[in-house]
Parts: sequence; C-alpha cells; structure tokens
Amino acid sequence: MTAAPIPAAPGKPGLAVSPLAVAFPAIGTVGGVELATARAGFYKHAREDWCRQALAATGGEDMRAVVINAGCANSFTGKPGFEASRRSAAAVAALADCGPDQVMVASTGVIGVLLDAGKIEARTGEIAATLAPGRWAQAAAGIMTTDTFPKGAVASCEIGGVPVRIAGIAKGSGMIAPDMATMLAFVATDAALSPKVVQALLTPAIVRTFNAVTVDGDRSTNDTCLVFATGASGAPRIDDATDPRLERFRVALVSVLMDLAQQLVRDGEGARKFVKVTVSGATSEASARKMARTICESPLVKTAFAGEDANWGRITMAVGRADEPMDRDRLSIRFGELWAARDGTVSPDYDEAAMSAYMKRPELEVAVDVGVGAASATMWTCDLTHGYISINGDYRS
Amino acid sequence: MTAAPIPAAPGKPGLAVSPLAVAFPAIGTVGGVELATARAGFYKHAREDWCRQALAATGGEDMRAVVINAGCANSFTGKPGFEASRRSAAAVAALADCGPDQVMVASTGVIGVLLDAGKIEARTGEIAATLAPGRWAQAAAGIMTTDTFPKGAVASCEIGGVPVRIAGIAKGSGMIAPDMATMLAFVATDAALSPKVVQALLTPAIVRTFNAVTVDGDRSTNDTCLVFATGASGAPRIDDATDPRLERFRVALVSVLMDLAQQLVRDGEGARKFVKVTVSGATSEASARKMARTICESPLVKTAFAGEDANWGRITMAVGRADEPMDRDRLSIRFGELWAARDGTVSPDYDEAAMSAYMKRPELEVAVDVGVGAASATMWTCDLTHGYISINGDYRS
Repeated sequence: MTAAPIPAAPGKPGLAVSPLAVAFPAIGTVGGVELATARAGFYKHAREDWCRQALAATGGEDMRAVVINAGCANSFTGKPGFEASRRSAAAVAALADCGPDQVMVASTGVIGVLLDAGKIEARTGEIAATLAPGRWAQAAAGIMTTDTFPKGAVASCEIGGVPVRIAGIAKGSGMIAPDMATMLAFVATDAALSPKVVQALLTPAIVRTFNAVTVDGDRSTNDTCLVFATGASGAPRIDDATDPRLERFRVALVSVLMDLAQQLVRDGEGARKFVKVTVSGATSEASARKMARTICESPLVKTAFAGEDANWGRITMAVGRADEPMDRDRLSIRFGELWAARDGTVSPDYDEAAMSAYMKRPELEVAVDVGVGAASATMWTCDLTHGYISINGDYRS
Repeated sequence: MTAAPIPAAPGKPGLAVSPLAVAFPAIGTVGGVELATARAGFYKHAREDWCRQALAATGGEDMRAVVINAGCANSFTGKPGFEASRRSAAAVAALADCGPDQVMVASTGVIGVLLDAGKIEARTGEIAATLAPGRWAQAAAGIMTTDTFPKGAVASCEIGGVPVRIAGIAKGSGMIAPDMATMLAFVATDAALSPKVVQALLTPAIVRTFNAVTVDGDRSTNDTCLVFATGASGAPRIDDATDPRLERFRVALVSVLMDLAQQLVRDGEGARKFVKVTVSGATSEASARKMARTICESPLVKTAFAGEDANWGRITMAVGRADEPMDRDRLSIRFGELWAARDGTVSPDYDEAAMSAYMKRPELEVAVDVGVGAASATMWTCDLTHGYISINGDYRS
C-alpha cells in the first residue's frame, strides 16, 4: 500500500506530530462515496439523539450523508441542541436531495456549547462545490481536534466474486480530546449490505478493535462509529449476516477498524510508546479482557512505560486489582521475548540490561499469563507522559 | 488540639513537602502502646499471608506487637518471603516475650525483592532500647516512603464513663507509592474490645474513610489497616458490637480513620489540590459512590483540577461512563457555591470570572446531583499533575 503525504497540520496548533504517527493511506475512491470539507468556524458531542431518531425512522436504509463538525460537541445543550442538529441535517439533505432523516450528524468539541447551525448552513454551497470521491485525507484532517495526524485505513476483498472496498477515517486523540466529547469513526464500503447485516458485522468487530484500545480510560458516552454501505460495487446484496459470501468481508472490515483503532492509540495525547498487552491463561475472554484493561489503564503502569521501566511489580498490582481469577504462584510476565517474572516471582534469567534496552523501543509488547485457564485477550494502549498533563491540564492556565 | 512540629524529611529525598500537608498531631500516649523505630537498611507488600495465618491461629486475641518495615515489600517472593516474615515476627516476639503468632508484620517497598530478615534481627536491641509510649511521630516518619509528611490522628471519648483514646498513623502516598505495594495504617486504642467487635466497627468505617479516598485508582491488593485494642484504659471490655456504650467510640474511630485517609490524599503524589466530590440524587449509596469514584479517578477530570479549570463537561462525561442511573436533563453540577450546570445544561448564572477565582483555591468541593433519587456519597481525591508523572515515570530515566 502506497502512503500519501500527511495532508494537514494538527487540529490544535502547537502540538508536535506524534512520534508514533503513521502516514495516511492511499484510499483512492469507494464507489458511491463523495466527501467535502469546509471551515465552518467552530472550534464538539455527536448528536446521538438525532442519529438514533433518524435511524429509527428509516431503519438505516438509504442513508445518504453524514455531516461532521469539529469545534463544538453540541452536548448537554438540551432541546436547542437537538434543533441545531436537525437544521444541520436539513441543510445537507437539501444538497443531497433527500430527507433530513437520511442524514447523520456528528459533532466533536466543547461540551455545553450550543451548535450554531447557521455556520453549517452558510457553507453548504462550498460543500456542494467541493464534493469529490477522493477527498478522504482532507475529510480525515477536517475532523481532527487534538489529533496530530489524520487517520485513515482501507481494505479490499470480494463478495460473490465482485471486488469491494472498505475505507474509513477516525479522530481521537485522547479517548476524549481536551474539552471534547467524542471519538469519531466513519467507515464506508461499496458492498451492498442490509442495515441489519452491517450491525451484525460491526458489533462483534468493535469489541476486538475500538473497544480494545484505551488512552486514558476516559471514554465518552457518545463515541460514534458509523458504517455506510453504498452498494455501488455491483456486488450481490447480502441480507443475512451468516451468508458465507461475507467471510472475507468480515476479516477486511475488522482490519480497517483495527487499523483505525490502533492509530487512535498512536496519537494518544502525549503518547511516546505504543504498547500491546496480552493476557493469557485466564478463565474466560471477558476475564482476560478485564485484566488487560486494568493493566492498560493503570496510571502507575503507564507512567512506568513512560519511564522506560520494566516495572513488572506494577503489572502484578494491576492484575491483582482487576479482581479476576488468577494464580499468584503461576503468574508470568514477559516484555517482548524477555521474561520478567515466572511462577509468581522474579524470573531466574531476569537481565536488567537487556530489559532496559528493550524498554527504550517505541513499540512494546507485554504478555501476562495468569495460570488458571486457556482464554486470552489483547488490548493496546500508550504511555502516560508529561505531554498528557500539559495537553489536558495546562491548557487554560 | 496543639500540633507538634513535623518531625522528619520525606521518605524519598528530593520531594518537596506537599502544599496540602497538615501538621502531625500531639498524640501523646495511648495506654498499652509503645513504639520504636530503627534504620534496618532496606529501602516493600505487607506479608498478609503471615498476618492472616497468625490471626487465624490466635483469633486476634492478645496480639502483642506489629513490626513494620519500609523499603522492601517482600511481595511476590514466594515461600522464602513467608519465611522472612516469620523470622521478622519471631525476632520481635523474643523482645515482647510472646509467640511469633502474636506479632503482625507489614512491609512496604519494591515488589519482587525478598525481605532480608537479618536486617530486622540485627536491630532488635536498638528497638528494645528505644521503645517508648510517646514516639508516634517518629513511628509515622519511620514508615514513610514517597510520603512528604508523616500522618497521624488522635481522638478521645468515653466507654462506660471511662476515658479512652484512639490514635493512628498511616503512610501513602500514591495509593501506591513508586514501586511500592502498600497503603499502611495502624490504629491503637486503650479501649477493651474483643477482636470481633473491632472488626465489626472497622469494616463499615473503612467504606466511608480509606475506601472513600483515591489518588490514582491504583490500589494495592494488600493495603493494610490494623487496629489494636490494649484495654489499658480500664474501660469495661465490650464483646458485642451492638453495645450502646460504643456509640461515641464508633464516631471517634471514624474520625481518626477519616483524618488519616484524607491526609493520604493531601500527600497524593504530585497533589496540589485537595478535592471533595459529593454525588447526590442517586438511586442508591453504592450507585452514588460509583459515580463519585469515576469522577475522582478520571484523568481528564483530575488534569482539569490541576489546570484550575471548572471543566464541568468532563464531569458529565465521568458521570456518564459510570453507567449508573441518572437523568441527563436534571444533572446539576456545583463548584463550591457556584453552579456550573443546572438541569442538564450550562447554568444560566454561570460566571466564568467567579468560577476561575474559585478554582485557584487549594481545597475544592464539587457537588453533583444526578436527579433520580435521594442517595448520596462523598469521596476525596487530588489533582493529576506533572509531579505525579515525574515521581512515577521519570524516576528511573
């Protein structure tokens, strides 16, 4: 896959690009999808109420557009906020020659500030003039807030012998950026899928992708992932999620979601380490996931990563406080290929010099075996650095 | 209450005393209690296994001593660690002319390093020579790790007309200090109480005190709070926790535990703000407590406190992700006496200048009403600052 140049400066001026950044992929086009960006002049809460009402009214069939704004979350703004969402949807519906119910809205930015729908209405001409199939990178840059690089992913496969494409963009960059209330992800495919099939594919995929990454444990109540299926590929329409023709599509969809989710971690506020944490030997996948999450969200574990310190004691602490079945006397912890602890105590071949050298890497793998079963789970996180404090604590002072 | 001068430098050299520090109280003596300190040369995990076994063997009757060391947690050290705890207890038992089972042990420090019991055995002479009833401040200083001030509390009351005293010391200073595995608290009273009565008084009190404070959400699996009742006051022995003569004692015990617990927050790693968070209008006390804890442990809320930012949007986010019953359209948030949000949206009398002035105070109160019931809960926390990152992340680099 050829990478395109990173097309834009960070959403928030003054932030250096994450050392863990990846280049925006060459997405090209996805049949049936056009994108446009305009500077509306806000500078956030997806109006989930609007989206839920519209989806209930339409059953998710024949959705035509999504309008996304950064700068104002339009969250905790009550009835006037809902009306602002309706007006935004209506303005875009006029362009798309459809009903407002066929337009999704997503907002990200300051909570408690009412969306000025007039700023969106004033830009519909510009949006209409610049709508084009190839503007993925521009759209990804347009929704950035404290993100330091735009995030995109693309995959191809076949359904019934017809090539189909899946592409997506997302924004972070904490799970919640400063003063902002949303992780947003938008995925489109030219496959022809019923809304129920899309939901049936998406729900389990989310568990292993977006719900398996964490920056600071602070998830918005209104993170949004929208998936659109245009059908423009000409591939046969699938109405049953168990249809065997979906096998490769399912894998491709997970790969796009995983790519986007991991990019969120790479751009986690202040992140300087990208860390994969796997917990094995658990009694169930849910139990393994809870332990992995507790490790990934522990401030002491995350500051140890920042300090390039293979502090396995803090990992045992996090495993312990997850309150899940584990055997203290069989607990083993590995950093990369290096064993830190085996059978509940320091590893006999623990090598401080080798461990210190490993911890200096920008990408780390931590494997924990809790010795009581065969289930495992993996999560991804970043370190907790002065950068996180500066972005989130210093910005008003 | 007259305050004694703070008797010692921080446990970890180079740390400035917390701006939220309080003076060590004039505890004086508690009948039946003598304290001594010695420099053993460690520089941590309470051997809970030893304590549990000893308590099981004795039923908690006639416990005579506790030996506490800082510097080595003796945690994840397997059978050799247990043997080291036994030797420590035996060394002190010889001094106290009792059995090892009558001696509790507590350790705090690096995980995974075996306790060298010889270092304790070598100091028993010094301990014997310096045992004295008034050395509370020295004992509190002796167990410090990254604490920046020693923590003590004292209260008096009557049982059956006889004056009794309760005194305690504790150490933090994250919930887990760097590389350390324990929050330790030791409380003694000259009241005469059966072990069952002590436990019955302690368990509910802990919920409202030590379990109602949080620095970083990282609690050790082996935090320890030991309460000793010497009976030296001559007050009548109480064997029934429902005895009405305990009424005032119960209140006094909670006051000592609360005082110590709040001091832990005041000395939270990097803390510059002491924050009381009350959630009311919840469907149950447990629900209110969960929402209060989620607020208190949210990195985004805590960095906002550090930034002196009345960021009520982040508090709505934290309330939302606690996944407890609440009414978004009745949510109200107050900082001190200043309303930030009422009925789910920004307060009509929101005054940015007044709010900014309030947030500059070192002690803050946040009150959240979630509008669905009559239950409430209070927790205490501190802000999340560069100091926390430096103490926990930079210390090896």
